[in-house]
Amino acid sequence: MTAQSPSAAVLIIGDEILSGRTRDSNSGHIAAFLTEIGIDLREIRVVPDEEDRIVAALDALRTAYTYVFTTGGIGPTHDDITADAVAKAFGVAIEYHPEAIEILRQHYVAPEELTEARLRMARIPVGATLIDNPVSKAPGFHIGNVFVMAGVPKIMQAMLLNIEKELHGGVPVQSVTVDCPFGEGVIGTALGEVAEAHPLVSIGSYPVLAARNFSTKLVIRSRDAAALAVAKTAVEAMLADIARHKAGDSTLTDY
Amino acid sequence: MTAQSPSAAVLIIGDEILSGRTRDSNSGHIAAFLTEIGIDLREIRVVPDEEDRIVAALDALRTAYTYVFTTGGIGPTHDDITADAVAKAFGVAIEYHPEAIEILRQHYVAPEELTEARLRMARIPVGATLIDNPVSKAPGFHIGNVFVMAGVPKIMQAMLLNIEKELHGGVPVQSVTVDCPFGEGVIGTALGEVAEAHPLVSIGSYPVLAARNFSTKLVIRSRDAAALAVAKTAVEAMLADIARHKAGDSTLTDY
Repeated sequence: MTAQSPSAAVLIIGDEILSGRTRDSNSGHIAAFLTEIGIDLREIRVVPDEEDRIVAALDALRTAYTYVFTTGGIGPTHDDITADAVAKAFGVAIEYHPEAIEILRQHYVAPEELTEARLRMARIPVGATLIDNPVSKAPGFHIGNVFVMAGVPKIMQAMLLNIEKELHGGVPVQSVTVDCPFGEGVIGTALGEVAEAHPLVSIGSYPVLAARNFSTKLVIRSRDAAALAVAKTAVEAMLADIARHKAGDSTLTDY
Repeated sequence: MTAQSPSAAVLIIGDEILSGRTRDSNSGHIAAFLTEIGIDLREIRVVPDEEDRIVAALDALRTAYTYVFTTGGIGPTHDDITADAVAKAFGVAIEYHPEAIEILRQHYVAPEELTEARLRMARIPVGATLIDNPVSKAPGFHIGNVFVMAGVPKIMQAMLLNIEKELHGGVPVQSVTVDCPFGEGVIGTALGEVAEAHPLVSIGSYPVLAARNFSTKLVIRSRDAAALAVAKTAVEAMLADIARHKAGDSTLTDY
């Protein structure tokens, strides 16, 4: 199902996520964005703000996937080390980028406003092209197959829209959800048979727990709309069959 | 700061997270839990429901960190393949575990209730010990340094409490947050100097964007309470100094 499709990884850089203080919302946003344009997100990694760890993750991911998207670590403070790590991973120098300096100069007009810290955000690996930041101006950048974006969700989201035109998407995976009123343990065997009989789709089964009762969300995914429709009908028929035959079972909403 | 502390990785198994349809909340919960007991979470990975990918991630993580915590893929449906992947990673067989069967039998009393699918949840890698599941009974398990938990947040959280006694924590990292009313670009250079002068703490700087204005959360972390207090005072003095000298700067709440 995914052999022909462009693939991607997301690399989240941030001690703050690993400490549990801040919940990462960027990876979920990027995941949904990529699904819409037909790029398969195949891995998410979160690593600390440590150069060697960022370099190692970048090297592992950029050689394994079509695209890598990073968030975080490109601001003006001492703990923002992503640009340096990216330069190191690509074996290039990092320099003040004339266009990035100009963008900052137009925004921070008085010389004392363009602080040393803010100017630091114009340091870009040599050979990279800038990603426009309509929110706070300091750009992201793109080098090789790696797209380097800010960690602030609003800025990251704006940058993502600005790089969409540079990404080669594939046929989007479509999905339908069938709500199953029974627990997974009731439908598991029959569902496995349906899944096996419909190799053009993938069927995911997700337990939902509410007030001690389990139900299940069945998500059918495919790039082939016809196959998706056929599989959906088969899943619904299977559920109707179970409802008929197991009507008296007191464990229908157990796991 | 972390050299002596036990380390950990979280491995989230789930196509549903990578598709962007479901947001992962388990990794954030585990992260906060580990921070409290003094275990450094050093990496989070999300991989698809594919055996070779799970095995490769398990092998990379279990050799690099003290503990690995996985969530997802241990239910009764065809897409639940984590137990098989863990067995493969450890090079052991997977068998129906007598104690796990007994747990399920006590819950699903009538023979027709203990479906083939539910019984599948008693398949456990040889040599593993069970993790109690007070919510829906089917156990997780623990083999080597890998703890295998359910994906349903409520069940995962209960399992985590049940394994706490088996984990050797370290001295917990304490943290204090200083709210800075200015953007990172205003404080960056001075903050870097404070960070350099206080090597026993790590200082993270996190921009906050609200109504087009940036402020900053400064999070100071250390295992040394005295060093933490000294660094906090230094950060506050630095901010007071900036407030005095930059009172007229119109870009104080720019990035």
